[in-house]
Amino acid sequence: MKPLRILMIGDIVGRPGRTVIHEKLSFLKRKYEIDFTIANGENAAGGNGITEKVAQDLFISGIDFMTTGNHIWDNKDVFNFIDSEERIIRPANYPASPGKGYQIARIGQNCKIGILNISGRTFMPPLDCPFRTADKIINEIAKETKIIVVDFHAEATSEKIAMGWYLDGRASLVVGTHTHVQTADERILENGTAYITDIGMTGPINSVIGVEKDKVLYKFLTQMPVRFEVAGGPSEINGVVADIDKNTGRALRIQRIKE
Amino acid sequence: MKPLRILMIGDIVGRPGRTVIHEKLSFLKRKYEIDFTIANGENAAGGNGITEKVAQDLFISGIDFMTTGNHIWDNKDVFNFIDSEERIIRPANYPASPGKGYQIARIGQNCKIGILNISGRTFMPPLDCPFRTADKIINEIAKETKIIVVDFHAEATSEKIAMGWYLDGRASLVVGTHTHVQTADERILENGTAYITDIGMTGPINSVIGVEKDKVLYKFLTQMPVRFEVAGGPSEINGVVADIDKNTGRALRIQRIKE
Amino acid sequence: MKPLRILMIGDIVGRPGRTVIHEKLSFLKRKYEIDFTIANGENAAGGNGITEKVAQDLFISGIDFMTTGNHIWDNKDVFNFIDSEERIIRPANYPASPGKGYQIARIGQNCKIGILNISGRTFMPPLDCPFRTADKIINEIAKETKIIVVDFHAEATSEKIAMGWYLDGRASLVVGTHTHVQTADERILENGTAYITDIGMTGPINSVIGVEKDKVLYKFLTQMPVRFEVAGGPSEINGVVADIDKNTGRALRIQRIKE
Amino acid sequence: MKPLRILMIGDIVGRPGRTVIHEKLSFLKRKYEIDFTIANGENAAGGNGITEKVAQDLFISGIDFMTTGNHIWDNKDVFNFIDSEERIIRPANYPASPGKGYQIARIGQNCKIGILNISGRTFMPPLDCPFRTADKIINEIAKETKIIVVDFHAEATSEKIAMGWYLDGRASLVVGTHTHVQTADERILENGTAYITDIGMTGPINSVIGVEKDKVLYKFLTQMPVRFEVAGGPSEINGVVADIDKNTGRALRIQRIKE
Ligand SMILES: [Fe+2]
Ligand SMILES: [Fe+2]
Ligand SMILES: [Fe+2]
Ligand SMILES: [Fe+2]
Ligand SMILES: [Fe+2]
Ligand SMILES: [Fe+2]
Ligand SMILES: [Fe+2]
Ligand SMILES: [Fe+2]
Repeated sequence: MKPLRILMIGDIVGRPGRTVIHEKLSFLKRKYEIDFTIANGENAAGGNGITEKVAQDLFISGIDFMTTGNHIWDNKDVFNFIDSEERIIRPANYPASPGKGYQIARIGQNCKIGILNISGRTFMPPLDCPFRTADKIINEIAKETKIIVVDFHAEATSEKIAMGWYLDGRASLVVGTHTHVQTADERILENGTAYITDIGMTGPINSVIGVEKDKVLYKFLTQMPVRFEVAGGPSEINGVVADIDKNTGRALRIQRIKE
Repeated sequence: MKPLRILMIGDIVGRPGRTVIHEKLSFLKRKYEIDFTIANGENAAGGNGITEKVAQDLFISGIDFMTTGNHIWDNKDVFNFIDSEERIIRPANYPASPGKGYQIARIGQNCKIGILNISGRTFMPPLDCPFRTADKIINEIAKETKIIVVDFHAEATSEKIAMGWYLDGRASLVVGTHTHVQTADERILENGTAYITDIGMTGPINSVIGVEKDKVLYKFLTQMPVRFEVAGGPSEINGVVADIDKNTGRALRIQRIKE
Repeated sequence: MKPLRILMIGDIVGRPGRTVIHEKLSFLKRKYEIDFTIANGENAAGGNGITEKVAQDLFISGIDFMTTGNHIWDNKDVFNFIDSEERIIRPANYPASPGKGYQIARIGQNCKIGILNISGRTFMPPLDCPFRTADKIINEIAKETKIIVVDFHAEATSEKIAMGWYLDGRASLVVGTHTHVQTADERILENGTAYITDIGMTGPINSVIGVEKDKVLYKFLTQMPVRFEVAGGPSEINGVVADIDKNTGRALRIQRIKE
Repeated sequence: MKPLRILMIGDIVGRPGRTVIHEKLSFLKRKYEIDFTIANGENAAGGNGITEKVAQDLFISGIDFMTTGNHIWDNKDVFNFIDSEERIIRPANYPASPGKGYQIARIGQNCKIGILNISGRTFMPPLDCPFRTADKIINEIAKETKIIVVDFHAEATSEKIAMGWYLDGRASLVVGTHTHVQTADERILENGTAYITDIGMTGPINSVIGVEKDKVLYKFLTQMPVRFEVAGGPSEINGVVADIDKNTGRALRIQRIKE
């Protein structure tokens, strides 16, 4: 049986990020023969949060499902649709918030995929334990499908790699997001889980993680408040393509995308 | 004139890291025709700090110069030789500490290279401003040579990328260290500085940033104190090779190494 | 019926802290006609952690019960007795650790007191939610007694005051510990809970929260590692005396102690 | 010669804080026979920052001088007057910002007072070293007057007490602000500097450091974004009264105020 090929795209940042998705996603999906496309959308609306309009627009551009992260609540419009839009999840370890932390989606007639979003706690707000949350939800999802993708939205490399090992053999693909810089450590772990510390972002390359560089430098040099603005110029899509064995849920291949 | 080819190696972690240096460095230097080899040695002694014995051993293995980072002071032996060993520097923005934050080294008869080590402050201790420190020292070094390598030992991707842009056109090569995970964003910035957010580590691959994974998972799951131990198993060298134009100090090429 | 009078003593720091307890506690208990004495013992052994010997010694000096905090695990001897010593508790929101987070103790024949220890998370490690933990345990304790004392070991004033309001009317006394500086905001909250943000420490007054001041200044000025040592010189006991109505569990009075 | 009597008032929070100043300050100044009144105004406008209108209003109410802190930049109106209003200072260790970090004010014909504002760095943004900044500026002020008041706006008790000892004998009065909770450790240090870790806030007492308690509890329980609002209900003024020997600059007395 042909493996399932998943494209997982890093944090889409503002209009430049959305534009490069509009322009290149169809082409990429054909080029890599993608079966299912997930993207992190926490920065899709002006760099902070996501609106219903932006979300629908991205779904129309070919994204099948969206994960998010700490910026999910930045644009208040999210509260209008997070509970009804089944194709968007937020970190599962928020102790009490609208929306869902995981979802099981259909791919074609016979295939189901579980998608789980979790947030780290190192250098981040103290949500519920990401490891226990992942443990519990993956046991839940495993009752329905072996194909499980985890977006671990976290800062520290140690916490992300630890999660990779923790879920090794239980998830098909564990990707990190949040740092907006793609790492070069993609691999299949010992028990068959494809892993990468961060898939990077989708947005302007001449920037500081998507933001206009002068604004960020001013911040670091003065420690004064500054309104961050999404940078202009050329953008690229960062992400990974992973092949999953439909029978076992194990990963067969993981490849970085940067184009 | 042939460009200068520099090999910059990521944090060498404990005995496994040193062993892979002993076994592979000579070969790598020949393979890539390296002119000068720098390594970050902050974790060289048992994962924490560096001793004189370990340092000399690494120099004998073919490393020409060492930068360090926040772990430099972990092994008290460092205080015995940091002031006399001219081939090791510590972050320049410690406000009052032994050792030096930069050094100008000779490569052959006619070539001088300035090496600068700085530490970030985001999610790290509040040292002096890394940007102002870099600014001042690079002006100093520039009086003697145009070939300048900066090891920015920092956690946050935003701070590291901001430093890259800040020094663009003034340094030949700016590499990040500290996260122990190599990033895939190596490039030549707009004004000729070669940049990468993190060059990764040199040590055991089946680990959490060099540490035995069970210990780290225990820590994350319990928040209890635990003695971290350097992991065993296969190791690899992570780093970058950069070509620098000797006349202009500009970078011509940057390539990731992971072997 | 005469109210129950509780003496709650702030973090006992090292030998100086233990000595002032030996010297003054009996006198204080007589002077204030104390029925039950609780102390925070997380720094009792050399400033870091607690040993069985130190603990027994403090019980002999007249302390009836001990709470602790983030330093509880610093001295490894604690693992030898934390599970058997019913008079010592550790923060209840450690997700998986030895020892207990609360205890119900007897005072005389007819009176039971529930003592709960929790740790904050602001500027501290990400344990389980302190508010949910408190909620759950207080419901448990309330089945057996209305007299409930909470030691909330936390850094941020906002988190501590929030806990006071959260437990107002459900606990008899909520005291903060950890900052080692007594606050002047003791009061009875609107629904009858006695509250103070921090009861201070028991140890050397010419120090920085118990530590030799030169060591701490060296640390702040250099950001270099330094071995903290408990300071010498005169010590004082910091704490509060609270009167609890035995029938309702409500606080009638709270008074700061500094002597 | 009669000592100089200074009233130093803690962070004035929003309208409730300003109202209690209007209502009680004149009375307090007469009651305590105050010569000079300083207040921390970083939260004076709606809880965040300060506007010109609010500032002038507070000066009219009897405040002679204002210090601030990390919230100084929250209301953008501050940029319109911070450079021209000589009676307001901001933390001196901002590396590059408008306004001044210290000022020398006149009290009557013959008396000058130096006022210095510094921010801590523990659990706060990485400004320049507060200790070196204080050192340098106090040497500057000392050329003109021996009467020196320092507002150290900081979070950690250790950093604040360390600053007290660091300036002992060089400043007349060192007060902490920022935690909004008054501490009970006021004293004259060994070399004559009056010190207190925090003077508390001026604002609504049934609140969490000035903010409506339900909002803060919602934040702690959910980790969701929430718009903080200044609480209502009764307010009080927190601060200290200190007597300074005009000839030596040494403190003779320090007394907490809470009314
Ligand atoms: Fe993001
Ligand atoms: Fe994020
Ligand atoms: Fe390292
Ligand atoms: Fe490091
Ligand atoms: Fe303590
Ligand atoms: Fe503590
Ligand atoms: Fe404030
Ligand atoms: Fe503040």
